[in-house]
Amino acid sequence: MTMIIAIDIGGTQIRAAAFRRGNTTPETVQRTPTRGEGTAFERMCALIQSIWPEDIKVEKIVVALPGPLNPETGVIFSAPNIPGWENFPIGPELEKRFGVPARIGNDANLAALGEWRFGAGQGHHHVLYLTISTGIGGGVISDDRLLLGSHGLAAEVGHLAVLPDGPVCGCGQRGHLEALAAGPAIARYAQEQIALGVKSSLAGKKKLTAREVSEAAALGDALAIQSLERAGTYIGQALAVFLHMFNPSIVIFGGGVSFSGKFLLDPVKQALEKHVMDQSYLKNLVIANAALGDDAGLMGALALGLMPDKPDN
Amino acid sequence: MTMIIAIDIGGTQIRAAAFRRGNTTPETVQRTPTRGEGTAFERMCALIQSIWPEDIKVEKIVVALPGPLNPETGVIFSAPNIPGWENFPIGPELEKRFGVPARIGNDANLAALGEWRFGAGQGHHHVLYLTISTGIGGGVISDDRLLLGSHGLAAEVGHLAVLPDGPVCGCGQRGHLEALAAGPAIARYAQEQIALGVKSSLAGKKKLTAREVSEAAALGDALAIQSLERAGTYIGQALAVFLHMFNPSIVIFGGGVSFSGKFLLDPVKQALEKHVMDQSYLKNLVIANAALGDDAGLMGALALGLMPDKPDN
Repeated sequence: MTMIIAIDIGGTQIRAAAFRRGNTTPETVQRTPTRGEGTAFERMCALIQSIWPEDIKVEKIVVALPGPLNPETGVIFSAPNIPGWENFPIGPELEKRFGVPARIGNDANLAALGEWRFGAGQGHHHVLYLTISTGIGGGVISDDRLLLGSHGLAAEVGHLAVLPDGPVCGCGQRGHLEALAAGPAIARYAQEQIALGVKSSLAGKKKLTAREVSEAAALGDALAIQSLERAGTYIGQALAVFLHMFNPSIVIFGGGVSFSGKFLLDPVKQALEKHVMDQSYLKNLVIANAALGDDAGLMGALALGLMPDKPDN
Repeated sequence: MTMIIAIDIGGTQIRAAAFRRGNTTPETVQRTPTRGEGTAFERMCALIQSIWPEDIKVEKIVVALPGPLNPETGVIFSAPNIPGWENFPIGPELEKRFGVPARIGNDANLAALGEWRFGAGQGHHHVLYLTISTGIGGGVISDDRLLLGSHGLAAEVGHLAVLPDGPVCGCGQRGHLEALAAGPAIARYAQEQIALGVKSSLAGKKKLTAREVSEAAALGDALAIQSLERAGTYIGQALAVFLHMFNPSIVIFGGGVSFSGKFLLDPVKQALEKHVMDQSYLKNLVIANAALGDDAGLMGALALGLMPDKPDN
């Protein structure tokens, strides 16, 4: 019997869980704030130490991380809001500290892996996972394997160019899906329309959020509904592209914005049907909500831990 | 010792080659016109019969086919210009006829596989292959495996939406890369500009081809150069998207149009550098011309034949 330690580094908290091999319910879970005294790495190490099993061998440590990273070398290139994690070899550092193999993965990629193995994507071999919240991220499972690319930078689904010369994206480019359809883009559009004189129950709010837009839509606010429809239409157009590129058998939506329900998803489906080049792509295609919620990253880290390591080339 | 029979079904001819396992030079090659007396299937079978080895066991027959198909079931959905090949179970029919396993693959996908195994992509694990001629097709190798998707319809790189409300594509959608940058799109743009009064050495030609545009560009014709630059810019924009989606370590260009040289490729590289979201995608990225020429489909069929079959799930 061995154990896998899975860690999820979020914007506000770090969570660590120890799983007995074969179990999907953790033996222990502990959490600590991402920011606080000492470095994030030291706080993570203390957390791992606190759940380290006394009498069972730890097989692997797996960490789900925000931001771009190289899963092969274990180096994170940058992590938003975590000072000192620029080109930080977190995998090798953990191995040095704890003496067991350590693996890292992008949190959206690992959430895709988690949903495939333990969540909404079970039984599918080709999965597209999209998480829509303050950004748009995701992951692709192709033939039961995570699509990583040569530096682990594949499946950056939020950075699909959708609208030439469109709004500026967080990455600096223009017209990316994330800049058109993530939560802040939905809120910004509603706010712009209000500034242009469109009537809405949302008028007068200082700093609008996508959640507020979603709530107003549920109460029948026309501008709120239109703001979600607009985002959904862009997501549907993008989905047609993703189908042409990855041909999944299931599309899984995660992230807060996807809970806007039919106001977002109906336009997604309409735009997808309009823009897909061939009906074969829609044959048996399942569109589903994520099943793992906030645990997707942690469960994805476990899923990665359970996969055999690639033989060295 | 066993043999693999590789077949490439082209628009004008069918080629069949018998390879001894371990050899990349065929023992025999035969060809027949795609259209002629009898059905294409019967002509293909006669061709296979003509190269069937007398004293060596045939391990597998592999066919590279134009048009969408399902590599798992061996069914081709439709083949341009080949009557009777709508939902035709070519794989099972070949197995019935010859009593050995038969596999089929999309010709652009197999060309990608051929370039990876025997051509410009040797040594790479993540390959993007683009063929630009009368259409734009391609294939993706990810982690040493062909990206197929759930119905074998992945990597339809020509059908990336690039320009909303752009020109109509062969598939019926608008603004796809193929409709903007394949050979006919290049020729059509030059012709439109001439009709608008732009001076060019190409003026007066009835039916312009991309080859003529390319030749005129080499002689310094400004409109011809601009027509190729325009296509190259769209290809470069698309390439940025493909990098974000697949993160290859090499991009291989095949097809007649890619021989337009720097007039096409310089704008491709400029647009790619402008539109890529992060320089990490360009790190160690190789951009190369295809090495196998017209043999890419045949060599890809051989490459597929050499890969172990997946165990049944």
